[in-house]
Amino acid sequence: MLRRGFVLFLLVLPLFNITPNALGDEGMYPMSELDQLDLKAVGLEIEPSLIYNPDGLSLVDGICKIGGCTGSFVSDEGLMLTNHHCAFRAIRDASTPKHDFLSEGFSAATRAEEAPAIGYTVRITDSYRDVSAEVLAVVNAGMDPENRTKAIEKKMKELSLAEEQAHPGKRAEVNEMFLGKTYVLFLYTYLKDVRLVYSPPLAIGNFGGEADNWMWPRHSGDFSFMRAYVGPDGESADYSEDNIPYRPKVVLEVGSEGVQEDDFVFIFGYPGTTYRHRSAAFLRYLSKHYMPTVVDWYGWQIENLVASAQGDRGRELALATRVKSLQNTYKNFRGKLQGIERLDLLASRKQQEEQLQIFIDSDSQRQENYGQVLGRLDDYYTQRAETTAFDLWLRYMLRSSETMSAALIVWENSIEKNKPETERESAYMARNLDQTINSLVIKADSFDPQADALIMSELLRRAGDISQAKKLSAVSDMAGSKGEKEAQKFLQRAFEKSLLMDSDKLLKAMEMDTAELQKMNDPFLQLVAELYPPYLELRQENKRRKGELDQLQATLQEIKRQFQGQDFVPDANGTLRLTYGRIEGYSPRDAVHLTPFTTLEGILEKDTGVKPFAVPERFRDLIVAGDFGPFVNADLGGVPVNMLYSTDTTGGNSGSPVLNARGQVVGLNFDRAWEATINDFAWDHSYSRSIGVDIRYVLWVTLKFGGAERLLQEMRVDF
Amino acid sequence: MLRRGFVLFLLVLPLFNITPNALGDEGMYPMSELDQLDLKAVGLEIEPSLIYNPDGLSLVDGICKIGGCTGSFVSDEGLMLTNHHCAFRAIRDASTPKHDFLSEGFSAATRAEEAPAIGYTVRITDSYRDVSAEVLAVVNAGMDPENRTKAIEKKMKELSLAEEQAHPGKRAEVNEMFLGKTYVLFLYTYLKDVRLVYSPPLAIGNFGGEADNWMWPRHSGDFSFMRAYVGPDGESADYSEDNIPYRPKVVLEVGSEGVQEDDFVFIFGYPGTTYRHRSAAFLRYLSKHYMPTVVDWYGWQIENLVASAQGDRGRELALATRVKSLQNTYKNFRGKLQGIERLDLLASRKQQEEQLQIFIDSDSQRQENYGQVLGRLDDYYTQRAETTAFDLWLRYMLRSSETMSAALIVWENSIEKNKPETERESAYMARNLDQTINSLVIKADSFDPQADALIMSELLRRAGDISQAKKLSAVSDMAGSKGEKEAQKFLQRAFEKSLLMDSDKLLKAMEMDTAELQKMNDPFLQLVAELYPPYLELRQENKRRKGELDQLQATLQEIKRQFQGQDFVPDANGTLRLTYGRIEGYSPRDAVHLTPFTTLEGILEKDTGVKPFAVPERFRDLIVAGDFGPFVNADLGGVPVNMLYSTDTTGGNSGSPVLNARGQVVGLNFDRAWEATINDFAWDHSYSRSIGVDIRYVLWVTLKFGGAERLLQEMRVDF
Repeated sequence: MLRRGFVLFLLVLPLFNITPNALGDEGMYPMSELDQLDLKAVGLEIEPSLIYNPDGLSLVDGICKIGGCTGSFVSDEGLMLTNHHCAFRAIRDASTPKHDFLSEGFSAATRAEEAPAIGYTVRITDSYRDVSAEVLAVVNAGMDPENRTKAIEKKMKELSLAEEQAHPGKRAEVNEMFLGKTYVLFLYTYLKDVRLVYSPPLAIGNFGGEADNWMWPRHSGDFSFMRAYVGPDGESADYSEDNIPYRPKVVLEVGSEGVQEDDFVFIFGYPGTTYRHRSAAFLRYLSKHYMPTVVDWYGWQIENLVASAQGDRGRELALATRVKSLQNTYKNFRGKLQGIERLDLLASRKQQEEQLQIFIDSDSQRQENYGQVLGRLDDYYTQRAETTAFDLWLRYMLRSSETMSAALIVWENSIEKNKPETERESAYMARNLDQTINSLVIKADSFDPQADALIMSELLRRAGDISQAKKLSAVSDMAGSKGEKEAQKFLQRAFEKSLLMDSDKLLKAMEMDTAELQKMNDPFLQLVAELYPPYLELRQENKRRKGELDQLQATLQEIKRQFQGQDFVPDANGTLRLTYGRIEGYSPRDAVHLTPFTTLEGILEKDTGVKPFAVPERFRDLIVAGDFGPFVNADLGGVPVNMLYSTDTTGGNSGSPVLNARGQVVGLNFDRAWEATINDFAWDHSYSRSIGVDIRYVLWVTLKFGGAERLLQEMRVDF
Repeated sequence: MLRRGFVLFLLVLPLFNITPNALGDEGMYPMSELDQLDLKAVGLEIEPSLIYNPDGLSLVDGICKIGGCTGSFVSDEGLMLTNHHCAFRAIRDASTPKHDFLSEGFSAATRAEEAPAIGYTVRITDSYRDVSAEVLAVVNAGMDPENRTKAIEKKMKELSLAEEQAHPGKRAEVNEMFLGKTYVLFLYTYLKDVRLVYSPPLAIGNFGGEADNWMWPRHSGDFSFMRAYVGPDGESADYSEDNIPYRPKVVLEVGSEGVQEDDFVFIFGYPGTTYRHRSAAFLRYLSKHYMPTVVDWYGWQIENLVASAQGDRGRELALATRVKSLQNTYKNFRGKLQGIERLDLLASRKQQEEQLQIFIDSDSQRQENYGQVLGRLDDYYTQRAETTAFDLWLRYMLRSSETMSAALIVWENSIEKNKPETERESAYMARNLDQTINSLVIKADSFDPQADALIMSELLRRAGDISQAKKLSAVSDMAGSKGEKEAQKFLQRAFEKSLLMDSDKLLKAMEMDTAELQKMNDPFLQLVAELYPPYLELRQENKRRKGELDQLQATLQEIKRQFQGQDFVPDANGTLRLTYGRIEGYSPRDAVHLTPFTTLEGILEKDTGVKPFAVPERFRDLIVAGDFGPFVNADLGGVPVNMLYSTDTTGGNSGSPVLNARGQVVGLNFDRAWEATINDFAWDHSYSRSIGVDIRYVLWVTLKFGGAERLLQEMRVDF
């Protein structure tokens, strides 16, 4: 346990009184790169080896991954802090006809009341090592792109399996760090018994809802407490009443006194994807073809799903997660498109590449090795753009409706199960199949035929505008406005007849082989079976594309490195990273300055009595009463609610603890400012800001509104 | 001329280096109250007698009124600076089929090219004196409210006429300062030959348009130069080529170096109406009945007029002024309603009145004299509320459409002309009739039958929902959805047959008596004739109401003065006032701070290429070129565009010069921040901010974009 060490440390440190002198900086640093950084020079007050230590315990070992989010261990009994939106599904699933915990909030008065978070796992990183040499040994310059990709994928799977055999009970994964260039093998522990401990009601945990999403000023109590359990033997185990709380290797200390403006902070997390080392051609493809198509389709779905459920609270609730997820991407992509436009990113990247091309052309050897790379990337994305509409249509046809998505899994499973383990699509490998089935069953319980029918009719209508789609025999009769009648006939018959709406039958179907499935005569399975060959073709084509792109991308990176004369931090890829910055505001536009803390008064200011700005009466009373305990920021004269800081984050950083210069948890990352959605392409100190819940707000709400004294005691927080 | 004196003064002043120590303050001070203020203590660096001096010349004499706006003389040849939106009609009217000066901007290369601003007058205040005793001598306690109002109105007119007879060529007006209590006689000179000199294009002068109206940050070049001309004898004269520039008594010096944050500024102007000394009952009436009805009707008109003109650039232009004016009130009222709600003004005024009632009741003599006043105000507004829907409907029926509005003037004129001068409605007094006819003719040229028909059908439809309207025989057949067919029949016939669309016929009709008009059988005149009796009744009733209210209001003010133990500044009433404050930003909401200057970069930031955010290419090039001459603010590193300051302004302050501590023009007031629309009810330092064009932007645009070097030379500005 690291806590005690830190407490000792704190007694010593204030003597040094380090004055930080550097601003937040671009960079989501892999742990392996931390030794390149002088974190103490920028404001860290503890030894870097206390943050990350490959040979011993460090703060990193107090971090975990919960679903797609980051979490942190804040007690030695497996208590974890993460975002409310990360626990959302668990809260909904724990709800009963008598108790809607999303509306009421969830608070377990005792350990026994902690509610199982079905389908949740907690992943802890045990170790990792560079396996680039081993992976790249299987390819050679003469290979065609498709074979290259297949060979690498197979090698990655083999390495994972071998590592897992050497460490029974653990899971291994190989991640590509730099595209086509660097590969790292991670070894993980997965905990399978995760429980919900405390969540504020949505009115606090998602105050501001979609209206405020990606926005600052923000007033969201986006936090929840969960707990990881293990078997009595201390090993990962499925849920059981006999299970005991997990003892994390390291517990993060809660810094209940919080931070103030200009303070140094840093964040661990699993940022998903960034594109900072991609070409101008890629940016053009993304911003002119891919993202506009997605925005258009997601916008349509949001509008029509919301409209279709209007007035039916049951369906509204059932569709809530789905709409929330669509809206999140929709707003994110729109922010990115706007940012690419505003920063004229395409032009500036083109300009950089012109400089690069001049550098390449100035040396005949360089020209021979790298002269074609930019031109070929351009051709590559021009080709991609030609089929984007169809590629996405086919993807949406098979995945936007939950019925078709289930049918696809059932069908594909019947095919993949006949292949050897390492050649299977990842979801159908024996090691993953349980989780695939699990999520299938969970979704089956919330199938909404009305929503799915709406989505499928629209996709069939749109097929009429896409030449490649119109030609598919599976849908040609139903495509466009001409095919509307046929489409309606099919959908009516399908939803009446399909067996996929029933989770038991779905489970049985997962046991069947292709021939048995065909005999079922299920209309959705039949449609999937017909769409599957073009889908396979597209997948094949995508592997070929990836092989081609990986080589181009690796070549581009190599020459960029030569040109810049230095290494750069790899793009985010879902692996553990550290980013640092300061608590600071920013100016989103002329004459507007946003300050870095919001207050309880701001919550009352926004209160309209109407969702998502409806403040519960009891909460309003608590704010007005002003009993803030020790959780006050003297400058603000009250409890800080949310805070803003100049770290470098992206999707996947949700739930990441925000740590102060002494490594204490002072907040919980949950979002970025609108201007910072462009982070994924270009980080800039002037506008790249992340948003977190202030730990003082977390503690005050948990204590005063939630009445969960026991949690504060468990975290050893004075109040 | 004051200029030279000031220049001398400036050489001396910096030695004192006064450090201002007071913030902006509530108060639109009448000139007569200025001696109560210690302006030097709050930051003024010149002698107060240079600002206002009843016995000699002062800065006040450099101020004039242009239409409904304020203007200032900035050269000894009658050059005036006012807002672009104040010159809007003149710019439109000066446009020709070949030149749309609203789009192109207007720039007279020589004096001869300065374009007549038809219908514009410039009013200069010559002197004023308190006439309360004379006015109130005509009333006594026993009079009924209606007679009281009539007697006061008659006396006010008599005083004006007598003063005008004593000063041939001048105009006199009596204004009510405190309702029913204080009356002041003003003597004015009206100049009738006003010309347009320089206006930037709408894309600069109204950059941001309705989207930005009432908003900060703002980037509007809302300024224009006009010039006043007089006859060769120096007296006020109608337009003539022989006229010569007017020589103002005082010229304001242009402070081309501008101001910076925290600087003291003050403003002269003619603020229209405020309601700070009104009762809670009035606030309730206004916010629950009157304003919501207006907002609803104006909103309807805006939506439908805009929709009806869509795609027809000619009609769009013709309706532009009308829609602009509707939108301005609409947004203003919505801001006020929101402010009343946000500040809970009703509750706080009620609370104050409860305190006042306790004070009244604590003394039996006070109770006898004042005990009923609050209760009676309450009753008064309860009654008003009962007829608001009908009162406004009748008003809109006669005035919202321009055809009916013209018919009303023609009809009313035929009646009023038979009365003695002092008993006539003001518009029909011999002294005002020319102006009334003038504006009638101007409007007749832009009649839009389609828009008017739309408005009248909607009002007739709405009559169906208002019991008093439905009963009127003039419209009962056409009221509501039931009367729709009849209404359409009437409107079709009316627009085919009516003679009011022709300005010549309209002029002839103004000569006719009632009997002659009846013989014309004009459908609109017939409708007006039928609606006129209830309209007269309403007007009579309003006079009675005003008499009743004036007494109540005077009583309330007297007891409030006793309760507060001090005098207060009278509500704004369109007479000359001074207000002061500082250049400072504000925080409209939690974590948002708005700084007090915007920049040219902000214009580029807002540029979308689409109106109202379309930056002309030549202007963009100028900004990018960065040739800012001396008009740079060092802190901003560029030309400041708009500025924010904590003065106390309201509608009518448009065009007011913003003066620095030395009395130099450093900006041009044109708007208030959204939060400050509530100013009219309650001023507060935390949110009451006015918005001006920075003089450096005015000069830079005029010079670099307009190429009007001659104007800068005329104003003796170095560049």
